[in-house]
Amino acid sequence: MKQDATEILVAWADALTDYFRRLFKRYPTAPPRLLEAIEYSLLAGGKRLRPALVMESCRACGGGESSQAALAAAAAMELVHTFSLVHDDLPAMDDDDLRRGRPTNHKVFGEAMAILAGDAMVTMAFEAIAMDAPAELVGPLSRELAAASGPAGMIGGQVLDMDEQKPKNLEQLQRLHRMKTGALLTASCRMGAIATGADENKLAALDRFGRHLGLAFQIVDDLLDETSTPQQMGKATKKDAAKGKVTYPTLIGLEASRKEAEKNLKAALKAVDVLGPAAEQLKCLARFVVERQM
Amino acid sequence: MKQDATEILVAWADALTDYFRRLFKRYPTAPPRLLEAIEYSLLAGGKRLRPALVMESCRACGGGESSQAALAAAAAMELVHTFSLVHDDLPAMDDDDLRRGRPTNHKVFGEAMAILAGDAMVTMAFEAIAMDAPAELVGPLSRELAAASGPAGMIGGQVLDMDEQKPKNLEQLQRLHRMKTGALLTASCRMGAIATGADENKLAALDRFGRHLGLAFQIVDDLLDETSTPQQMGKATKKDAAKGKVTYPTLIGLEASRKEAEKNLKAALKAVDVLGPAAEQLKCLARFVVERQM
Repeated sequence: MKQDATEILVAWADALTDYFRRLFKRYPTAPPRLLEAIEYSLLAGGKRLRPALVMESCRACGGGESSQAALAAAAAMELVHTFSLVHDDLPAMDDDDLRRGRPTNHKVFGEAMAILAGDAMVTMAFEAIAMDAPAELVGPLSRELAAASGPAGMIGGQVLDMDEQKPKNLEQLQRLHRMKTGALLTASCRMGAIATGADENKLAALDRFGRHLGLAFQIVDDLLDETSTPQQMGKATKKDAAKGKVTYPTLIGLEASRKEAEKNLKAALKAVDVLGPAAEQLKCLARFVVERQM
Repeated sequence: MKQDATEILVAWADALTDYFRRLFKRYPTAPPRLLEAIEYSLLAGGKRLRPALVMESCRACGGGESSQAALAAAAAMELVHTFSLVHDDLPAMDDDDLRRGRPTNHKVFGEAMAILAGDAMVTMAFEAIAMDAPAELVGPLSRELAAASGPAGMIGGQVLDMDEQKPKNLEQLQRLHRMKTGALLTASCRMGAIATGADENKLAALDRFGRHLGLAFQIVDDLLDETSTPQQMGKATKKDAAKGKVTYPTLIGLEASRKEAEKNLKAALKAVDVLGPAAEQLKCLARFVVERQM
């Protein structure tokens, strides 16, 4: 068993990169420049946290390391996450020049190509599930991914985030976070469980784990934006303050934010206690997410 | 049996609008402004040709009028088609102000919202299939939709269309058309067949029908862009010539283009002769597509 989160992340990131290399070969007639733009963002590194959550949630529910359903779900999740980054970085949205320490997709390939590359990643995500998951799991996995990324999930959260009416209190801020980042993180955990055909109890445990982890993740993200440098993060920092964005630190202060993150981490860990030792690596990932720079 | 294409289109358009109204109710927690932007483009009228092709292909293969699988596939197809129009109209792409006689999505809701509304329509398309098609058809229908819209389909075709290297001959132009518009039209016909669990022979007939119809459709589109007014079309015309785009008329002239469209219409009609009288309304739609203004 791996005790180190970095080791867990690297192992799954490698498996995922192999999968993506095979995936690109499925589109021999696609314009090479489009595949290049997709590859640029998809293989840009990054922690691959969401795929690792899918795979470790699968393991926590008794699924095997080589579950094709889980691997397809993990790849689909990373495709959707990466698409959202590419579109969020566009001039019409956050207008960012830097992502994972490199120029953003539209800076390299132009705005039109970045829009289309993002679009293509969404269709590729659902295609990966439809091609590689067993027939009876395609529906449940697709539903989960679509609900988490659509109007009531990530994309809806992005709309809230653009709104000129800032969240005024913790409740409104949590709603934004739950949709914008929480939905995909929770769905990652749920899809790992679904890939094993897990029963309602296991699915509920992973659901609770995912929700608390998602919240903790976003609080830590807010904290890091406030306290770290662009060199550490590989992207612009202190953007939130510059834009007058309401964040955990601005609403309740740094110290209370740290406590809130810790509280949610504990609740996440507790939620998967019922799964026993199979959930150890999943717990290890959760600790890593929350303690990465605190 | 309906003998008039307009009647067929209107009947299916009404069924689809009902479906979309139910669909929007599935996202009670989504930001209202996002749903409004989606609705603006999705319920903007338009011929609803692709959904009608799905439903009539279903009928041609012996499927019932109320096939839930076909209706979900028809809705998914229209969602993906509409998403592509919204993104194509963006300033970074074709930069159009007018669509279906109304201001384009980004002119009304802003660029960021238009990008996100388009994104959401893609996830909603796959969700419609995953929610409403019978479990055993979710995989086949999703695969078909994803392949037709992704890097080797519509989105790939859009990339080719942006390319500064214009198609030099008929072969290259046909490749572009096959991807940019042909893939979705062909998939519409195929998905209607798949919704009925059609055998290989029927699927092959609908596939051939869709390919020829797709080609005829694009030739007619090129012709209409050349010969009609913005008032007739509800969008800017003569854009192709203004941009120096290579089209059927510029490559082989107006008269030969008309003949080529007729030839493909005939081939399409012949392909579904094997399906007998059940394909009559489908044939009626094909004639309408090619003869609409010639």
